[in-house]
Amino acid sequence: MLFRITLCYDGTDFMGWQAQRPGVGRTVQDVVEAALATLAGTAVRIAAAGRTDTGVHALGQVASFELSRKMEPATLLRALNGLLPPDVRVLEVAPAPAGFHPRRSAVSKLYRYLLDTGPVRLPTRRRAAGHIRAPLDETCVCEAAALYLGRRDFAAVASAGGSTRSTVRTITRSEVRFEAAPVPGAGGPTLVYEVEADGFLRRMVRSLVGGLIAAGRGDASVAALERALAAGDRQLWPPPAEACGLTLVRVDYPPLGDRD
Amino acid sequence: MLFRITLCYDGTDFMGWQAQRPGVGRTVQDVVEAALATLAGTAVRIAAAGRTDTGVHALGQVASFELSRKMEPATLLRALNGLLPPDVRVLEVAPAPAGFHPRRSAVSKLYRYLLDTGPVRLPTRRRAAGHIRAPLDETCVCEAAALYLGRRDFAAVASAGGSTRSTVRTITRSEVRFEAAPVPGAGGPTLVYEVEADGFLRRMVRSLVGGLIAAGRGDASVAALERALAAGDRQLWPPPAEACGLTLVRVDYPPLGDRD
Repeated sequence: MLFRITLCYDGTDFMGWQAQRPGVGRTVQDVVEAALATLAGTAVRIAAAGRTDTGVHALGQVASFELSRKMEPATLLRALNGLLPPDVRVLEVAPAPAGFHPRRSAVSKLYRYLLDTGPVRLPTRRRAAGHIRAPLDETCVCEAAALYLGRRDFAAVASAGGSTRSTVRTITRSEVRFEAAPVPGAGGPTLVYEVEADGFLRRMVRSLVGGLIAAGRGDASVAALERALAAGDRQLWPPPAEACGLTLVRVDYPPLGDRD
Repeated sequence: MLFRITLCYDGTDFMGWQAQRPGVGRTVQDVVEAALATLAGTAVRIAAAGRTDTGVHALGQVASFELSRKMEPATLLRALNGLLPPDVRVLEVAPAPAGFHPRRSAVSKLYRYLLDTGPVRLPTRRRAAGHIRAPLDETCVCEAAALYLGRRDFAAVASAGGSTRSTVRTITRSEVRFEAAPVPGAGGPTLVYEVEADGFLRRMVRSLVGGLIAAGRGDASVAALERALAAGDRQLWPPPAEACGLTLVRVDYPPLGDRD
């Protein structure tokens, strides 16, 4: 029986999603597969929609796996949550249609990035938000975000080591808003960036945010970012933003009737 | 020279504010005094506005200390933050007027409590919010919160072991709002409770929130809470809410001109 699960995790104490060689570090895939193996009495392999990096969080990661025994979704949810450590939780369990794959079947993914600004990094936010000291020019940040919209080759913002052949993706949403600082008076506004696409390349969101930061600080003009994107040259692109501010918010699939 | 500092900390990995006997555990007072001792070359004792419990956070704790050497506030802020662990930060340093005491000089304190509801406790919120599975009756919660307003004897919500003589306090603000769940669809709304008073008794805010939860779940009627308050009987009061949802937001002092 094929199941689809929705997972929430605090990525701080994980070496990312993907299982590693023993001894390398704790990963989300490892702990979920361990819980499933305990339940199933045999090794169970899971696939995920997005292979989040070390320190990246998820509110709605989607994964799938096959169980030979029949189990009620609600029972499976409670049993898994009883076995998982407190930094990972299953929010939803549902039977998946034959052929479902969390990454290949997905039509879009939504990521959110939080970036605090100001002289001091707040202890209460250090796991959930990136931080820079310098203030950001809000107009430049918004212009850079608008630049990302649409279908194009995103080779300039893909890290080496990705396994995909094509670097063309379509960004359907690239929105910036600024929220008041978590402590009024202490620090500047928080940049909240939401980006949705049909798929993302390796470390792509953090590179896109790196571009926003460079534009906002005046380290790169929006025109220079545009040229770097057009050239597809990673050497021309600003460094990626730190991992802790990034969250995989949601993965969307076609309505059941639309599949095939 | 007397200094006043504003501190932000993530209380998760602290045994509260107050210094403990060696070996008991790490406290905020301990780590701040250790940083000050390094700077001053001698032991420095600090006093705080509120002795927060184990697991309780602060966005705006206020503390004071005397340094024999003269230091610029901005220099002191940077030096302290360079020495402190990442879960405590100094947000502000200012010279304090003679006779200033962070607790005795305070005119009011504001605490905030976050309580998530729903079947699963979210990993990304487990350090910052309390959690209960049951849904809350919002009207009953609001009625209970309104009950707390005003000047009265709060003996019923004071834990044993407090050092104060009088248990009379004035609550000037006791506000409830409900926010959408952090993950749409996963879980019920989050209760956000803000309470401001001229002072708080030991574990008082967590007991007040315990009363809101009991009212919202139907475990206690608002009339029963009112009788328990009037009787001043701790045995009649519901159990306190867990510590992790509580944050000391702000401490207010009279404007400088008003002091003596």
